Amino acid sequence: MDDRQRPRRPGGRSARVRAAVHQAVTDLISERGYGNFTVGEVAARAGVADSSIYRRWGSLETLLTDVVLTRLEERSPMPDTGSLAGDLRTYAANVAREITGPDGLAVLRLAVALSSNGQQDLQARDAFLAERARQLQLMLDRARDRGEQPPDVLAVLDHIMAPMYIRVLFGAGPLTPDYVDGLVDRLL
Amino acid sequence: MDDRQRPRRPGGRSARVRAAVHQAVTDLISERGYGNFTVGEVAARAGVADSSIYRRWGSLETLLTDVVLTRLEERSPMPDTGSLAGDLRTYAANVAREITGPDGLAVLRLAVALSSNGQQDLQARDAFLAERARQLQLMLDRARDRGEQPPDVLAVLDHIMAPMYIRVLFGAGPLTPDYVDGLVDRLL
Repeated sequence: MDDRQRPRRPGGRSARVRAAVHQAVTDLISERGYGNFTVGEVAARAGVADSSIYRRWGSLETLLTDVVLTRLEERSPMPDTGSLAGDLRTYAANVAREITGPDGLAVLRLAVALSSNGQQDLQARDAFLAERARQLQLMLDRARDRGEQPPDVLAVLDHIMAPMYIRVLFGAGPLTPDYVDGLVDRLL
Repeated sequence: MDDRQRPRRPGGRSARVRAAVHQAVTDLISERGYGNFTVGEVAARAGVADSSIYRRWGSLETLLTDVVLTRLEERSPMPDTGSLAGDLRTYAANVAREITGPDGLAVLRLAVALSSNGQQDLQARDAFLAERARQLQLMLDRARDRGEQPPDVLAVLDHIMAPMYIRVLFGAGPLTPDYVDGLVDRLL
């Protein structure tokens, strides 16, 4: 929210560096998998100095977390259509498009890998889950305010997000619009 | 099935080597994550020669696939309780115990990593999914033969397996018996 009040310089050097570094990370994950590249390799591919990355992100872990959260924020915004069914269908369709699109699997695999082990990974995972839950809860709260009876956040995770995530992670069947809508309708 | 007709030598050298190599792989995945160790490191930890691993499995990819499929076979057998609800509840409880137990997350992360990229990984993934689907289909066929109305295999994957997998992968809440039974009851 506060981002909107800040003056933005989309063409500024800082934004260009950030975009180049994010793209380099996504490419390297696609090509080699999580954990198989260094800050130096990210820097070389993005055309920046190693020190620029350390100064801005501090560590590879923090950079990876920033990439995941930014992608989720940008590509799967929370809709506000005026009805719970509309919101969930639109949100589910956004997520489906994101995770089946270019780099989608790489970002999803990164999100899984961040949950693996180590204190930094756990903090990254908690940040990821807390942000996801917060966004979803706002949508469900709006529905309740309108007099609808929304499911809880974990039921949305279990029966809309989880099936789509697992199908993509295991390559088990396409996410057609009918399939995605069906997940929402079954839950409601 | 055919395994049962073959003479087994559970105490034989071949079986001991296999068990030691499997355990070494599982340990290394837990400690370092998928992709961060070599055949030589597996061999050293298992106390066998590199050549024993190459002769038996051919490659690290094939070995990793063997570890995943063996674990799934051994730890999550398909029950036959006489009712669909009983079968699914027992099966779901077995899977929940497996993926929340020691090495459970490591094996699950390996299954996800095998789905990532490359022809060998894709073959491994397909073997994993085909075996899982075959076992489940047998259970569902038995239910249909008894006059019950079973869901299809993909619905079991979407609404029983996927929620449990994602909760474990993202550390999002425990798999209590009530929760696991609730997934089955909701589907049926």
